[in-house]
Amino acid sequence: MDTGEFDLIAHIRARAGARGDVILGIGDDAALLQPPPGRQLVVTADTLNAGVHFPEATAAVDIGWKALAVNLSDLAAMGAAPAWCTLSLSLPASDPAWLDAFLDGFLALARAHDIALIGGDTTRGPLAIAITAIGTIEPGRALRRDGARVDDDIWVSGTLGDAAAALQAWPDPAPALRARLDRPTPRVELGRRLAGVASAALDVSDGLLGDLGHLCRASGVGADVELVRLPTSAALAVHPLAARIGWQATGGDDYELCFTASPARRSALEALGTELDLPLTRIGRIVAGADVHARDAEGRTWQPARPGYTHF
Amino acid sequence: MDTGEFDLIAHIRARAGARGDVILGIGDDAALLQPPPGRQLVVTADTLNAGVHFPEATAAVDIGWKALAVNLSDLAAMGAAPAWCTLSLSLPASDPAWLDAFLDGFLALARAHDIALIGGDTTRGPLAIAITAIGTIEPGRALRRDGARVDDDIWVSGTLGDAAAALQAWPDPAPALRARLDRPTPRVELGRRLAGVASAALDVSDGLLGDLGHLCRASGVGADVELVRLPTSAALAVHPLAARIGWQATGGDDYELCFTASPARRSALEALGTELDLPLTRIGRIVAGADVHARDAEGRTWQPARPGYTHF
Repeated sequence: MDTGEFDLIAHIRARAGARGDVILGIGDDAALLQPPPGRQLVVTADTLNAGVHFPEATAAVDIGWKALAVNLSDLAAMGAAPAWCTLSLSLPASDPAWLDAFLDGFLALARAHDIALIGGDTTRGPLAIAITAIGTIEPGRALRRDGARVDDDIWVSGTLGDAAAALQAWPDPAPALRARLDRPTPRVELGRRLAGVASAALDVSDGLLGDLGHLCRASGVGADVELVRLPTSAALAVHPLAARIGWQATGGDDYELCFTASPARRSALEALGTELDLPLTRIGRIVAGADVHARDAEGRTWQPARPGYTHF
Repeated sequence: MDTGEFDLIAHIRARAGARGDVILGIGDDAALLQPPPGRQLVVTADTLNAGVHFPEATAAVDIGWKALAVNLSDLAAMGAAPAWCTLSLSLPASDPAWLDAFLDGFLALARAHDIALIGGDTTRGPLAIAITAIGTIEPGRALRRDGARVDDDIWVSGTLGDAAAALQAWPDPAPALRARLDRPTPRVELGRRLAGVASAALDVSDGLLGDLGHLCRASGVGADVELVRLPTSAALAVHPLAARIGWQATGGDDYELCFTASPARRSALEALGTELDLPLTRIGRIVAGADVHARDAEGRTWQPARPGYTHF
């Protein structure tokens, strides 16, 4: 009775890789895992839908990478060590070549972060990828959104706005920008190193100012952001300032970490950025209040042309 | 910047309930959980797509119930105690009334089995519900597919074929049959009680004979099934025998447990069925070989008109 669906599952199973703590992986009613003693679990779920979260013409290998990357980015934002994930894949038709390319991207990133694919399902339907990722962390060290304090610095990793600029120029963005849209880099190692150092953190997925607003609401504080400090890639720097600032402040799809830390941590964080070869940039300060203020080079309050991305 | 998406999430969060081991639930980048010491994790993921896994006209309250039920059924088939789940909900539009009804069904079943909704996301797209459910179990007690031995009895819980008969009669099935299609009962308590008693188990989702074939392949055995023994509800018994047997043997969507056990366990299992007020029926025997043979009342081999359900 083997047919397409079970062939797909067998194919995914054969390529899924392993971890010592996976007692039973793909192929039973559920996976069986031995969690490390004394650690807490960190669990996140993020879905990508074709035409919403990535352009329809995105290559399968990039879709596979990105679907896992956005989930690893959430684990990174908590400071967790990735461990296991499930993959629910909805496909319009059985297409072994597409699936192999998808798995190439997915599993390359999975191997890089030692996260095991332990289950999921394949169904027929419009292309969609729903992933749940599970990590572990030492009790008390998770990076939450609710720990920011007045006078903390606000930091961001990497550069902002590249993915939004690529989407704006789709289907023909500059290759360096396109790579940021198609293949975001989850800041897993940074997140793990920030645990116990940063006071609060989240990943920038829906636009910096909107996401920072979530952090401020959770912490009961406000924020002052200096737009002139937003880190800018060489590929983005060629664009006019007004467009660039919009992409950087509200564009989304960055998957960088935005975090807060006491000013006493500045030199430690600068050293960490050097060690990880990843720019860490101070972009502002936590203040009393409840609002996120963005100021331009002249200190004027800046209003975004559009708010952060939302689905409804 | 609050808009529809964040309102939806806030609404789900407000209704999600709690468990003592959820340190941080919906609202951060990921949930933070304290797993019970000394237990293993059991993880499953199942997706429902509109028009594939349920008729488009299914009521939202039933979709919510069923989406969680099929995942709880997988935990049941492993013998696990449910603990936490994530929900990735793809919706064509923001519809608060639909969402509330969906949550009514989902959360009623979640409360009944003490499983906490700890995260997920809402995206815009064709209606689809992807759930990952996590349970826990004592090491060494999980009900796997690979433990069936020659001469074990084959058992099934409840009755078979009702959901398939309802789907066949859609949109106007008998109410008792329709309830089995729309609101399957995950056999969670039975699964937990079978841990350490049954030699192998799975849940019947794609049709008895096909699913039993997976169990036999995993265990390296064959099976003889007596069709005349398949448990039949009163609502199904009014249908002609040939149609009925087809639905019961290959129809799927039953979410009953099919399990194997040594004949020495017969009286214990009969007592368990009585205690749980759930029929447990011996339907056949594990044999040497690799095939699932189904025999009719005269002992003739029966061939299904269609194999079990597959998506491709």
